[in-house]
Amino acid sequence: MSERPLNVGVVNEVGADELRVALNPEMVARLTQSGLELLVETGAGDGARYSDGDYRAAGAAVVARDELTARADLLVSVGRLPPDLLRELGGGRAVAGLLNALSDPPLIRDLAAAGVTVISLDCLPRTLSRAQPMDALSSQASVAGYKAVLVAANAYDRYFPLLMTAAGTAPPAEVLVLGAGIAGLQAIATARRLGAVVTGYDVRPQAAEEVRSLGARFLELDTGPSDAEAGDGGYARELTPERQREQRDELARRLPGFDVVITTAQVPGRRPPVLITAESLAKLAPGAVVVDMAAGPLGGNVESSVPGETVVTEAGVKVIGAGNLAAAVPRAASDAYARTMHALITLLVRDGALAVDLDDDVQAGVVITHGGAVTHPAAHDAVEALDHAESGRP
Amino acid sequence: MSERPLNVGVVNEVGADELRVALNPEMVARLTQSGLELLVETGAGDGARYSDGDYRAAGAAVVARDELTARADLLVSVGRLPPDLLRELGGGRAVAGLLNALSDPPLIRDLAAAGVTVISLDCLPRTLSRAQPMDALSSQASVAGYKAVLVAANAYDRYFPLLMTAAGTAPPAEVLVLGAGIAGLQAIATARRLGAVVTGYDVRPQAAEEVRSLGARFLELDTGPSDAEAGDGGYARELTPERQREQRDELARRLPGFDVVITTAQVPGRRPPVLITAESLAKLAPGAVVVDMAAGPLGGNVESSVPGETVVTEAGVKVIGAGNLAAAVPRAASDAYARTMHALITLLVRDGALAVDLDDDVQAGVVITHGGAVTHPAAHDAVEALDHAESGRP
Repeated sequence: MSERPLNVGVVNEVGADELRVALNPEMVARLTQSGLELLVETGAGDGARYSDGDYRAAGAAVVARDELTARADLLVSVGRLPPDLLRELGGGRAVAGLLNALSDPPLIRDLAAAGVTVISLDCLPRTLSRAQPMDALSSQASVAGYKAVLVAANAYDRYFPLLMTAAGTAPPAEVLVLGAGIAGLQAIATARRLGAVVTGYDVRPQAAEEVRSLGARFLELDTGPSDAEAGDGGYARELTPERQREQRDELARRLPGFDVVITTAQVPGRRPPVLITAESLAKLAPGAVVVDMAAGPLGGNVESSVPGETVVTEAGVKVIGAGNLAAAVPRAASDAYARTMHALITLLVRDGALAVDLDDDVQAGVVITHGGAVTHPAAHDAVEALDHAESGRP
Repeated sequence: MSERPLNVGVVNEVGADELRVALNPEMVARLTQSGLELLVETGAGDGARYSDGDYRAAGAAVVARDELTARADLLVSVGRLPPDLLRELGGGRAVAGLLNALSDPPLIRDLAAAGVTVISLDCLPRTLSRAQPMDALSSQASVAGYKAVLVAANAYDRYFPLLMTAAGTAPPAEVLVLGAGIAGLQAIATARRLGAVVTGYDVRPQAAEEVRSLGARFLELDTGPSDAEAGDGGYARELTPERQREQRDELARRLPGFDVVITTAQVPGRRPPVLITAESLAKLAPGAVVVDMAAGPLGGNVESSVPGETVVTEAGVKVIGAGNLAAAVPRAASDAYARTMHALITLLVRDGALAVDLDDDVQAGVVITHGGAVTHPAAHDAVEALDHAESGRP
């Protein structure tokens, strides 16, 4: 044991409509029992219905933001944190969460220079079985896929299941799920539960078997052999622009006939691919519902989606921009996230102190900056390119 | 055939948030083909996504409200119509819909005196098999029961199904459905589809078998033998006040442990029974969701519910006042309603004219006033009591 225990600080999330919290009282209690000191920002658990009292009962001290940022050795969050807050942290401090750190090289450079350790859970090498208990992205995608179907079914003005009554028969909804990753598979399973006829699609042909195992059809597009086998770390590889256009065009031809479309195609840190153009959207029948799970500040899978809003097209199609659906099931999402965060902290802490080990392939994946350097290869390249670009200017 | 065909007029519903329409273009076309003339008020189908053009294509004339009320021989609606509109109709005219006519004896008296035929579909003798194709109340209750589960699942901040992932196991939601009529059974079936653990309850012990056949448990309350076998026409009979209190108290003891409660107890034309008092509500755990399907102007099954609103109690329980959920699935609900209305019109019309036959037991049930008289026994008694009360006053 080091002289004083490591302080783990739980922030009150800053994102709009962000109701999740990085650690729940159950995981706080486990960490406290293992000898760590836990600080929780006032109100951090409110959105997930965990009170300050719940955290105190679990052994944490509840503190204001100032005290949290001044004292926490390891700050944990669900979503991104404000750059100002991160820049306030001094050397030897660490921050962990779904920080999407690769998307902001200038910030990474500053934090490395300040000696802050940045751990971005979205960079987890998900294919390593050792990494699975800390796979926060998957746990949140699963919640989001479930919720996407509830949102779609609630917005749809007919039934999902086939229903036969004395007054006649209502046909089941035809649901198309684009992308058969964790979110897509959970959406397929949930839509099937509700009795819809479900079709799944993914650029990776090997996803067909998983889709079919859930009782759904697999949509076969006539676009030749795919170049989108799994990329590094278990994420779908980005398609070339030409292949993206082929896929969009072929998809547009197949859209009529679907009542509900759920799109789940995200490439970490990149602008999501447009799967459904305004033109394709016009091919859907009035009353159709489209849930764009990739809708966010960088764009979405549907050309006209607006994050956090429901747009009704002239043709009467509802387009729901729903990029952060996990936050809309805050208790389940926080509980799942807390387990992954607990697993991460357990991996990072040795004898009560943060012990980053870049020879560990899981840690090497998620640690972006450490000991004053940019340690993550992709982040390192991005920062070097930035340095080069800046030095090249007069 | 009479000299000119019967004019059937479809009103643009007047209720707040009422998106349904009494006849869809498919049924309009069938009625037109059978020789009737159809008038549809401008915009009547908008809420259910049927345009004026759709109705014209089906053979109807689309007209303004004034022309509709001036020309229609039989005015059809989903919900109640404004008394002023009904009083404008002259002798020999008819109106049909879920008018809840028994709740307004003064209006019934006026309409009878004016020679208007009032047909209140909520009075249908539902147990007669001949009546089933025109059972609008059941068709709408079925839609509402389905929607209640979607509303509950969307408001709940955890999962309905048991889900096992690499990050841990989420337990299924415990759902209690109070009332095992059409709405309750559909809610039970839908919550089961979504993977919840479901318990049903009804004051009629014979409902237990139906509840269990859907894979749900039946809640046995220790309140002695029930006096609530089915009443007239297939509706649950109202309990005595003492039995209601016993039921409430015993229910309150059983509520803790349920995550979601859906209440469906309605007695036509009466104030719905309070099943869950404010005190009972306090026994639910924070995060619990209660959907009160009886919430309306007369009250609801939950003491603190507000129609059309979600109230969060101090203890963190969400109470959703949702008395008109069928209207929230407007396309499916309208299509189902239109089939029942078509069946009713087919029953009432002979050789192109309205031919009310009070010797027909189905018609005797739904026809409230006809030929200048109050023909329905219960309505007749209510109007006589009203006359008596008024003549008894100085």
